[in-house]
Amino acid sequence: MSITVVGSIAIDNVITPFDKKENILGGSASFFSLASSYLTDVRIIGVVGRDFDERFLNILNEKNVDISNIVVKDGRTFHWEGSYNYDLSDPVTLNTELGVFMDFKPSVPHLFKNDTLFLANIDPDIQLDVLKQMKAPKLIALDTMNFWIEKKKNRLIKVIEKSDVFIINESEVRLLTGESSIFSAAKKIFEFGARILVLKRGAYGATMFTDSLFFMIPAYPLENVIDPTGAGDSFAGGFLGYLDNSGDFSDVNLKKALVFGNIMASFAVESFGVDRLLSINAGEIKSRFNKFRNMTYFGELE
Amino acid sequence: MSITVVGSIAIDNVITPFDKKENILGGSASFFSLASSYLTDVRIIGVVGRDFDERFLNILNEKNVDISNIVVKDGRTFHWEGSYNYDLSDPVTLNTELGVFMDFKPSVPHLFKNDTLFLANIDPDIQLDVLKQMKAPKLIALDTMNFWIEKKKNRLIKVIEKSDVFIINESEVRLLTGESSIFSAAKKIFEFGARILVLKRGAYGATMFTDSLFFMIPAYPLENVIDPTGAGDSFAGGFLGYLDNSGDFSDVNLKKALVFGNIMASFAVESFGVDRLLSINAGEIKSRFNKFRNMTYFGELE
Repeated sequence: MSITVVGSIAIDNVITPFDKKENILGGSASFFSLASSYLTDVRIIGVVGRDFDERFLNILNEKNVDISNIVVKDGRTFHWEGSYNYDLSDPVTLNTELGVFMDFKPSVPHLFKNDTLFLANIDPDIQLDVLKQMKAPKLIALDTMNFWIEKKKNRLIKVIEKSDVFIINESEVRLLTGESSIFSAAKKIFEFGARILVLKRGAYGATMFTDSLFFMIPAYPLENVIDPTGAGDSFAGGFLGYLDNSGDFSDVNLKKALVFGNIMASFAVESFGVDRLLSINAGEIKSRFNKFRNMTYFGELE
Repeated sequence: MSITVVGSIAIDNVITPFDKKENILGGSASFFSLASSYLTDVRIIGVVGRDFDERFLNILNEKNVDISNIVVKDGRTFHWEGSYNYDLSDPVTLNTELGVFMDFKPSVPHLFKNDTLFLANIDPDIQLDVLKQMKAPKLIALDTMNFWIEKKKNRLIKVIEKSDVFIINESEVRLLTGESSIFSAAKKIFEFGARILVLKRGAYGATMFTDSLFFMIPAYPLENVIDPTGAGDSFAGGFLGYLDNSGDFSDVNLKKALVFGNIMASFAVESFGVDRLLSINAGEIKSRFNKFRNMTYFGELE
């Protein structure tokens, strides 16, 4: 099985109250693919500029991420600079330079057209264009952000209509649906057409809805969060990586997949950029899964 | 089995962005005893003034709370007035009038001296005095607040030294121990002498530590929170009520007890004051336990 991810590949400057890193690998497709690379085969469709460090491509390649559809174009790579407060929650964006990402026109190779598909946070019109190129994807998932909800709500709803899984921040699903109750919001998303809703809740963890399931997990407890950048995409990578590899989209398996999302996100935030995602071994993932289970498992009533 | 609770019985004015109630029953002992009354026998040691509405005593009595040690004294009952913001988290205290509670000198009847004991949030010197009067309590638990941490830290640590269970808000355990990491904070609490630490985390849920256990649960999801007053004491009531009734203080049973705490707190916040705690039936508690288990349970790895 394999996943195709369509999203950004970026060069980030990240500032936290404790440290600062410049020109590190970022972007939704980078975090997503590295996180899911531990669980399934993954291939990126993306674009970078001439300034993109070949070292970054090697990093992805070494994790068996298929980089053959990362196009190098004249111009600069997508650059993002953000700063975090002491609460290490939402960053303040200091600078965004789209570069070659502005004219990103993803082309889906024939071999990818039946993959599981992750449409990372990009223009809904691009997401729709990618969907048109697919043939029989096993599962379609999408992410988005407040910018697209405000600018292209109707186009976004079209994407949701054609998708199976909608992954979004809890606050953004309220913005999109106009519902303060997450249960009412979930109902609306199902009316739009998706059948699985995953709400990312930052330090609160995550919740998931299907028509037969409501499931919630706390965030994996960490002593030391270094850089939250990419947590959401690593979450999506763990979640979809596990689902794609198992090929089992039942409620029972969706729950385990959500835990894998939680765990891959917990690794991602333990270092700046993608660093921690490069050094995980399979034993650590399994161990964190079992620890999380022990932390949250309680028995039945007699 | 039975629990003795030593704490405040108050008359509250509560203001939320949506409504306002005046002269309703409040106080830590009231919430605690009503929540635990569904799970075990509970008796209050407390004091009220001449202005205390007999209706409130009847309310407690009807739930089989032993009120024979609520002393009525000349003067006014403890009054509290608080206001909540839209986030319905910590209230702003607008007025506190201690009244007869200022000279509260609890006397423990002979029959109560081997009970499970809950020392609600009161002056650590009073808590120590109560402890001196006990004989062989099955389990000793205490709550406190930032005021006592700041004013009487050393006396508070004496109480922790003599207790089994310390129940406290997460932010306050950081204030008390000077540790930002909750794991380091737990270690310090164990050094003080308690062997079970329960951290209340508001909308984040709760965590529990023993020397062999780390356990965490999200808050029970609610469509409609009306009044958070008393959530913490109802939590303690559910937790200790379940433990006392079972007489089993193993890690496995502590986990279930924490879930009962979560569930009794979820009922408490569904109405102003203690109202919702008066109308629960046993089936609803069991049903919420099972629902919560389904919401959080996931299987093992193959």
